[in-house]
Amino acid sequence: MNPATAQDRPVTLVEPHAHAWSPGEARARFRAGLPGPTAGVAAGHTQANLISVPADWAYDMLLFCQRNPKPCPVLDVTDAGAWTTPLAEGADLRTDLPRYRVWEHGDLVAEPTDVVDVWRDDLVSFLIGCSFTFEWALTEAGVPMRHIEQGRNVPMYVTGRQCRPAGRLHGPMVVSMRPVPPEHLGTAIRESGLLPAVHGGPVHCGEAAGLGIADLSRPDFGEAVTAEPDDIPVFWACGVTPQAAVMASRPPFAITHAPGRMFLTDARDEQYRVA
Amino acid sequence: MNPATAQDRPVTLVEPHAHAWSPGEARARFRAGLPGPTAGVAAGHTQANLISVPADWAYDMLLFCQRNPKPCPVLDVTDAGAWTTPLAEGADLRTDLPRYRVWEHGDLVAEPTDVVDVWRDDLVSFLIGCSFTFEWALTEAGVPMRHIEQGRNVPMYVTGRQCRPAGRLHGPMVVSMRPVPPEHLGTAIRESGLLPAVHGGPVHCGEAAGLGIADLSRPDFGEAVTAEPDDIPVFWACGVTPQAAVMASRPPFAITHAPGRMFLTDARDEQYRVA
Repeated sequence: MNPATAQDRPVTLVEPHAHAWSPGEARARFRAGLPGPTAGVAAGHTQANLISVPADWAYDMLLFCQRNPKPCPVLDVTDAGAWTTPLAEGADLRTDLPRYRVWEHGDLVAEPTDVVDVWRDDLVSFLIGCSFTFEWALTEAGVPMRHIEQGRNVPMYVTGRQCRPAGRLHGPMVVSMRPVPPEHLGTAIRESGLLPAVHGGPVHCGEAAGLGIADLSRPDFGEAVTAEPDDIPVFWACGVTPQAAVMASRPPFAITHAPGRMFLTDARDEQYRVA
Repeated sequence: MNPATAQDRPVTLVEPHAHAWSPGEARARFRAGLPGPTAGVAAGHTQANLISVPADWAYDMLLFCQRNPKPCPVLDVTDAGAWTTPLAEGADLRTDLPRYRVWEHGDLVAEPTDVVDVWRDDLVSFLIGCSFTFEWALTEAGVPMRHIEQGRNVPMYVTGRQCRPAGRLHGPMVVSMRPVPPEHLGTAIRESGLLPAVHGGPVHCGEAAGLGIADLSRPDFGEAVTAEPDDIPVFWACGVTPQAAVMASRPPFAITHAPGRMFLTDARDEQYRVA
């Protein structure tokens, strides 16, 4: 996997009032060059992972997502070449994220702030649900978010669990981890379970070794978080999984968001809540 | 739309003890020639709509399903040419349904009991969630199912609401209707909402005209059901929608299940329940 980059800095809100921005306002700021991250921006609105692949890889990607719905819940898929989505009026997927990653044959080749120059007419873009959505629900329900308390990006780990492959696409499941106090465990599981469009309930609780993770202090993405003594590590499938599939499967070209620099949609988190 | 066929007869359990069969036992009986329908068979196990299209239509179909998740919740997609699925050990999708429909350029050309002779190596098969699953949940929760009380197939209607198109595929949303007593309405909405993989909560309640349905006594598929005086018509998105898309979009070839003659999976209904 790629080493952590300069993007994996502590999460601090980009501007003091960014949580109160409308999604459109946030997109305009990011388009104008504001660097992100997007954590806490336009509170209550759904953020999405982006992955764009050439049209002849789109079926494999869509099938990969269908076969692995917990890490890869699809919120929208564009037509080939299109940079618009019904999830965000007036948005331009090529410019409105704070930062992108450009991939060639599975290698990270650039981290630009827009992708207008490298855009291709055959790119199909997938917007994938993001755990930022269920973090709001958990916070509302009183579950402490240790990484937010500590001003850090959530830690993410490449697991030993392989996704179900689809055509040429294969790769490991990536998870995010949040330490949860035992008295909040039921709430955390129940509340995230009501949001299947943003990864749903956890895939594992307790020993990291159960997922083939050797050391919680060394995440593959994001930053390590300090747990309280009684906290139980809770692992959710993570939207970075399609990026891991790109690294493992090496399509000739792909564009993704940079970690923590998500796409702001106009959708409200609660519209993905099942009940 | 095609007129109702001989398949749309009153629903009666195929054999007295069919509800207690295992899914594998049920598939073996149907493979051996038992005609169906599958309502009530292998109780508690998930039944699925089948639609098989040539590989060069598979991306459009998968995208159509992703864009219209309420009528088209995808439970599994096979590799091209494969007639197996991880949802049902040892099953053969070409023989294990009681009856099929074969389509050429959008026209119904045959209703055989197996499709071994017309199978093609480029067929990709989609298994789509079926409302039989939430009917069990509703019955368990005490909601009366009028059509079952009356021994009829559930009535289905082609609506005036168009699905979001995907590539060459377009068509109207098809709904099923169940009359629900007002005191059970909340339960019916809540319980079905917890099963998003099998159409989730209703798309409409009350006046049929709101969906562009002219006459509830004349369903497009299945049979009309008699409502009690205070009952409210409740409409759920229906897995016959992909069949309507085939009729409207006319792919050169397709195979589907015959109405009411579903595919029995080994999955248990509760595993699709969100919480």
